[in-house]
Amino acid sequence: VTESALDPDATSKAGYRHYMQKEIFEQPRVVTDTWHGLVSESRVLTAAMGPDAEAILPGVRSVTIVACGTSFHAGLVARYWIEAIAGVPCNVELASEYRYRKPVVADDTLFVTISQSGETLDTLAALRFARQAGYLATLGIVNVPESSMVRETDLSLMTAAGPEIGVASTKAFTTQLVALLIFTLMLAKSRGRLTEEAESTAVHQLRSLAAAIENCLLIDDTLLAIAERFADKHHALFLGRGVMFPIALEGALKLKEISYIHAEGYAAGELKHGPLALVDEDMPVIAVAPNDELLGKLKSNLQEVRARGGQLIVFADKQAGFESEDGVTVVDMPHADDLIAPIVYTVPLQLLSYHVAVLRGTDVDQPRNLAKSVTVE
Amino acid sequence: VTESALDPDATSKAGYRHYMQKEIFEQPRVVTDTWHGLVSESRVLTAAMGPDAEAILPGVRSVTIVACGTSFHAGLVARYWIEAIAGVPCNVELASEYRYRKPVVADDTLFVTISQSGETLDTLAALRFARQAGYLATLGIVNVPESSMVRETDLSLMTAAGPEIGVASTKAFTTQLVALLIFTLMLAKSRGRLTEEAESTAVHQLRSLAAAIENCLLIDDTLLAIAERFADKHHALFLGRGVMFPIALEGALKLKEISYIHAEGYAAGELKHGPLALVDEDMPVIAVAPNDELLGKLKSNLQEVRARGGQLIVFADKQAGFESEDGVTVVDMPHADDLIAPIVYTVPLQLLSYHVAVLRGTDVDQPRNLAKSVTVE
Repeated sequence: VTESALDPDATSKAGYRHYMQKEIFEQPRVVTDTWHGLVSESRVLTAAMGPDAEAILPGVRSVTIVACGTSFHAGLVARYWIEAIAGVPCNVELASEYRYRKPVVADDTLFVTISQSGETLDTLAALRFARQAGYLATLGIVNVPESSMVRETDLSLMTAAGPEIGVASTKAFTTQLVALLIFTLMLAKSRGRLTEEAESTAVHQLRSLAAAIENCLLIDDTLLAIAERFADKHHALFLGRGVMFPIALEGALKLKEISYIHAEGYAAGELKHGPLALVDEDMPVIAVAPNDELLGKLKSNLQEVRARGGQLIVFADKQAGFESEDGVTVVDMPHADDLIAPIVYTVPLQLLSYHVAVLRGTDVDQPRNLAKSVTVE
Repeated sequence: VTESALDPDATSKAGYRHYMQKEIFEQPRVVTDTWHGLVSESRVLTAAMGPDAEAILPGVRSVTIVACGTSFHAGLVARYWIEAIAGVPCNVELASEYRYRKPVVADDTLFVTISQSGETLDTLAALRFARQAGYLATLGIVNVPESSMVRETDLSLMTAAGPEIGVASTKAFTTQLVALLIFTLMLAKSRGRLTEEAESTAVHQLRSLAAAIENCLLIDDTLLAIAERFADKHHALFLGRGVMFPIALEGALKLKEISYIHAEGYAAGELKHGPLALVDEDMPVIAVAPNDELLGKLKSNLQEVRARGGQLIVFADKQAGFESEDGVTVVDMPHADDLIAPIVYTVPLQLLSYHVAVLRGTDVDQPRNLAKSVTVE
């Protein structure tokens, strides 16, 4: 075992009340630290994944991503990107499920694992299985350079989140998304699916990410006010569609982990297939960045539960011009470009969970029953 | 619009207190009605899917299943079967998500839709998109023969559930599983992956399904007693692994739909990645048919929350010899063979939800906010 050379500030709270709060506010810096070295002024640097990357990527015909918990949600976001941008079929699977079934390995499939620690037991076990299962190659998206996962994968993309002390993952998740977006661009480029202009636009969006997150951090007071309405609830539903569906899942997981509110994420279109029965004044519904069309549908779904006090809280681009109305609270979000929007919209959900947990008096950095790295089953 | 020729008994409660109860108890008959005509004494009858089935199936190299709600859960079960038995990669996706993203269509992919009514709006829209998207062929698993979905798919397998009046789907789900298991066998056979012996064993298991479900219906009193412990709860976690993971999801959905208890399904291995923080005396944990190894892990996960009153209820094969202990209640299930086990284990979860809802005094057959067929978005 070797120790990381840590910045002396990296493991202090640096004036913040909790590590989690500090780590949320570090995100502008660490997302930049993560893309730095992986992109140039306007190009992705594929060789940063490893010396064999430029030989391997053009042969990739399918991607399988395996992870747990928050890292699994990052994989779900990546799936939308990989299929839409790189045009490659992508599966995402829970490591604990993958390792116990008989998966079929399609030809020329890249196996991708995601883990903050690089030591998550189920994910490592899946990787070790995969190395014998006929995959084209393996890629790890990892935060700890000295970890088993980095040593045992053919390719790796490091997130530069620095040490994450809070058990509920925040900056590890957003930096994983940065790495996965860059991976998607590398894959698309290797297959001739990325024009120079699209590449340049995407890199430009990444370079603007820190500022977009800074803008989100500025609405912290608004989020505290929303949190005050949440603190006495026992339930919440988080809804999203498309690339925002996994962001809704992650928003629900954060609230669950640190506030012990039973929050559940759902694809917005599934609301009428069951969970709508649960909605009443004790079950607020949070919708993440819906487009206009989705918001209209959500409003009509919730109209029938207005009589029971159903409340909708919508995180939406302030340029979209949505307005709060009876039963619908719109949180005006700073504008975020399309590729980085799922990363940006994660931040207010982290802050919301943080404030709710503080108001409820839970142990924010060390929630009951949970460990930072799950190195047991 | 033409009307189905209904048996006069088919739309009465026939002495049961609710349609849902009647429909649960009809399952031995309707699962048999479903396999009847699709299998012979010991063989699957592939041509029952349509005159082109025997020409199409050997060319299938990948399967995409698209559905909503309970039908989506049936698809998730089928995925395990299709990969493990037929050796074909399989994706399962929510229809409302599929239709709004840019999916990549792999070569020679069969597109499968599942819908009780055959009119579910999102699923039909996905089918209509898929018909233009370069799939090899389309297959519908549908309960209503006159429906749009049957008319618009190349192949179809009909479930013979008869009219389902209760909004919460019960017999439609179990008959969908029967059809999907038979489809899996047909696919495996067409690819030379099914020995005559394995085919015969599988058909034999299907033929024993009605009796296995009858045996489950006999433990109704035990389930009522468990329901009495649930009726004052506001939360529940349902856990499963592998093919039982979607059964846990479906168990949670049933409880949610008709009792308005916030039940959530999880892959058992994810417990330590977040939801364990929620577990206390108000959040019982239900585990479905774990094997010995899983039960050991669950017990150790829950040991640390025993002090807060965390309760585990385990549905397990009585031959497995598990015993109840402090904080762990074992429900002895009649033995079920491996292929039909997910179908059989669905039944006690339906009964549990039913009894909880009756005890809580909800409108079992017509839960608030929900419609039987979701023909709007």
